[in-house]
Amino acid sequence: MSTQPESPAAYKKLLRRAREIALATSAASALTWDQDTYMPPKSLPYRAEQLAWLSGHAHRRFIARQVGDWMVECEQLGWAPDSAPAGNLREWRHQYNRATKVPPRLVEKMERIRAHAREAWRLAREQSNFALFKPHLDKILALTRQMADGWGYAESPYDALVEGYEPGATAAQLRLLFSELRPAIASVLPPAAARSAAVPADVLQGQYPVAAQQAFNRKVAQAIGFDFEAGRIDTTTHPFCSTLGAGDCRLTTRYVETDFVQSLYSVLHEAGHGLYEQGLPPEDFGTPNGTAVSLAIHESQSRLWENHVGRGPAFWEHWHPVACEFFPGLKKLSPALITAAVNRVGPSFIRVEADQVTYDLHILLRFEIEVSLVEGTLKTADMPAYWNEQFEKMLGLKVAKDADGCLQDIHWSIGLIGYFPTYTLGNLNAAQLMRRAAEENPGLAGELARGEYAPLRSWLREKIHRHGSRHNPRELIRLATGEPTGIRDHVDYLRAKFVG
Amino acid sequence: MSTQPESPAAYKKLLRRAREIALATSAASALTWDQDTYMPPKSLPYRAEQLAWLSGHAHRRFIARQVGDWMVECEQLGWAPDSAPAGNLREWRHQYNRATKVPPRLVEKMERIRAHAREAWRLAREQSNFALFKPHLDKILALTRQMADGWGYAESPYDALVEGYEPGATAAQLRLLFSELRPAIASVLPPAAARSAAVPADVLQGQYPVAAQQAFNRKVAQAIGFDFEAGRIDTTTHPFCSTLGAGDCRLTTRYVETDFVQSLYSVLHEAGHGLYEQGLPPEDFGTPNGTAVSLAIHESQSRLWENHVGRGPAFWEHWHPVACEFFPGLKKLSPALITAAVNRVGPSFIRVEADQVTYDLHILLRFEIEVSLVEGTLKTADMPAYWNEQFEKMLGLKVAKDADGCLQDIHWSIGLIGYFPTYTLGNLNAAQLMRRAAEENPGLAGELARGEYAPLRSWLREKIHRHGSRHNPRELIRLATGEPTGIRDHVDYLRAKFVG
Repeated sequence: MSTQPESPAAYKKLLRRAREIALATSAASALTWDQDTYMPPKSLPYRAEQLAWLSGHAHRRFIARQVGDWMVECEQLGWAPDSAPAGNLREWRHQYNRATKVPPRLVEKMERIRAHAREAWRLAREQSNFALFKPHLDKILALTRQMADGWGYAESPYDALVEGYEPGATAAQLRLLFSELRPAIASVLPPAAARSAAVPADVLQGQYPVAAQQAFNRKVAQAIGFDFEAGRIDTTTHPFCSTLGAGDCRLTTRYVETDFVQSLYSVLHEAGHGLYEQGLPPEDFGTPNGTAVSLAIHESQSRLWENHVGRGPAFWEHWHPVACEFFPGLKKLSPALITAAVNRVGPSFIRVEADQVTYDLHILLRFEIEVSLVEGTLKTADMPAYWNEQFEKMLGLKVAKDADGCLQDIHWSIGLIGYFPTYTLGNLNAAQLMRRAAEENPGLAGELARGEYAPLRSWLREKIHRHGSRHNPRELIRLATGEPTGIRDHVDYLRAKFVG
Repeated sequence: MSTQPESPAAYKKLLRRAREIALATSAASALTWDQDTYMPPKSLPYRAEQLAWLSGHAHRRFIARQVGDWMVECEQLGWAPDSAPAGNLREWRHQYNRATKVPPRLVEKMERIRAHAREAWRLAREQSNFALFKPHLDKILALTRQMADGWGYAESPYDALVEGYEPGATAAQLRLLFSELRPAIASVLPPAAARSAAVPADVLQGQYPVAAQQAFNRKVAQAIGFDFEAGRIDTTTHPFCSTLGAGDCRLTTRYVETDFVQSLYSVLHEAGHGLYEQGLPPEDFGTPNGTAVSLAIHESQSRLWENHVGRGPAFWEHWHPVACEFFPGLKKLSPALITAAVNRVGPSFIRVEADQVTYDLHILLRFEIEVSLVEGTLKTADMPAYWNEQFEKMLGLKVAKDADGCLQDIHWSIGLIGYFPTYTLGNLNAAQLMRRAAEENPGLAGELARGEYAPLRSWLREKIHRHGSRHNPRELIRLATGEPTGIRDHVDYLRAKFVG
């Protein structure tokens, strides 16, 4: 569709420029992936320079005056709102208006600071020493605020940040949504935790060699449809999914020898992201129509495969015999017991290990903290204490070391502020999508029980993946599920699953 | 030295431009390293686009008219010939004159063809099917000839190619050198092979788990001084050493479970390259003064560590007890027998597995063939047959499949034509350097016997590494060893070692 004969010259120029920029940004993704997986430590300063140059170059090529002129020219053509060019143009305009308000030297400075801060965070987390990370976080925050001021906002500088991840979301709306969600979770948590108390916490503890975990994870990822001819799984500290180019989607995970559950579910999660990336129209790579529309939509895909499928009622019925080939110790456990164990509910310190019920409380805390840091009502020096105090209030646990508290996540170290709420929005979207998928396909539960994942994957491809950014995220969810993102389906799902 | 206060503006601009270009070329090195180690197959077409863009960008930034103007301005300043700026300028001028004679679209085209040809070669080699590779080789050759025509030459288009790897070398000189070397090798080979016949060919065959090989290789590489904080070893088909940025030197090797010798010596070889890269002045990264001067100098470093040290008389005296910890099967062999086994001389098919005596015959064959292909006196269609015929003449072996013949090396598939002779020049340089190192340090043999590698490494750093490209390769070897590259020391060394 990008080569339709009637495309005017200005639109063709925009396409060409977008694809050139994608070459630079995808090269930067490749270097970042390498930094997180294999890069030796002394390479860091130069790697930071390489990334600064690539992102600075991409930024400059995008904010060029001609790009603005080409857009104005195209916007006067009156394409149908749901046409391919209109989709690309809308998104370019949105990005252009954001990008032109921040000078390239700020972008390059941020890149350089990010690379160093990420390394400092890694060290700080290893030693559970917030002081090592604090000066870097201060720099990130100062620069982030400068950028928010550049982008502009009506109410909170946080609005300008979250807009970059979830177009249309604001601090005020998110506060409202979390204020509805908090009591709902609070009502589910006690009965869910009580029921989980019957399942021994260590029932899945054992010896699971890394090589066996890798082989089993790969089998599961392959079964749900992740294409290993166009992707890989590598090892890192903080699991992620990154696209390094067309046909190149890299997942990462981490391994604990005594606990295969962590790597398995993080692979299912990242493979959910990967299916979205691999389901985008390849001919549109490098343009908005070939790019995932928002983080909350992305997260809906990962959550759906990780939780609704992977922690669903039938998953272990199907996978138990296969898992036993890799982990003979599982033979003595029933599928029902494994299902109960991977769905154990109870307060815990680490977000990425949290159960489905408490998970959004972890997000709520981070959301409140980052809004306060950005709005200036909380100082970084006071942040660890504030974290620990609020955490105990909400989850009843005392944080003994910051590695288990405010140092556990990579996000702030790489400048991702305003990003956390998209995890919760992703949970809400996932529940809505699953509700709708089951309505449209009454055979879905049976298919999942038999390990037949193609129909669900195709439905998601049809409803979500193939659209790229042609609709804004709210519209996309409305088109796919019949209504905008809300808490109802998610809360219904949690109640049904955990309280029954 | 790059920041001396009296540097004129034009020189500073050249430095800045060179460093910017290095950001692009080193990013391309990182993407190429990834392509050879981890990249999933479907990424290939887009990776080719990324590399084409990066190299095209670097090329365009270098051949810009201003760059030429800045050089002219600097050249009028009359710096002392052995000063840092003069060294940089001389090399920039050499590269600029070469680069400005080839249009950017040719460079980009070559990049794209290389990426595809490399993949085709991999497949062709796997299936031992030359027909799969032939159309790609034809394209590479046609484009290579176009580039040679652009660069210009006095006698042979091959001169223009070899100049890119070994400034000053020509087809005629190399023909002369090989014509001296061939009879010398022919006189060493029969007695050396006769002596080796006493050593059973399979004496080192055994079970050597890859993980144990990796651990032992790493220990050896570390002992000779390779800095793993600024480098790594990964797995690939064809071992190489590549610098991905300042402080980032990546070695690769391949593993055979039944034969630890292959991966060990390829790691010693690549680590020899790596020591050169890690010994270049880091403050000059991205400029000629911080860049290795030529391939034959580079190869002298790898050969020296692989053969003169690693296959030297004392290597296994020192390493035998350590190796036994990793490979208990070696306990039953004496260091002297292992030394004899890794120095076994006899005709074989694969260049990278060839012994020190026959090795240069493999190069001689490739040199003759690539000269003929480039000069047009040999057609690609006739090449496999010609290879096999000449190979039998020289080494007495019949090539049964092209994977063991003309498809064994990656070089031509990635456009490296004119590159092979530098391996032989490297052998000659290595022997000259070792002769001189021993003259200047009578304790050298004792140090190597005790596994003390720092003095030799320091001597090489002093004589070779730290100079970057400040002297041309002939001058560098003359300064280090007292005379230009010749065959005498190498032939003396082969005679002393293999005939005695």
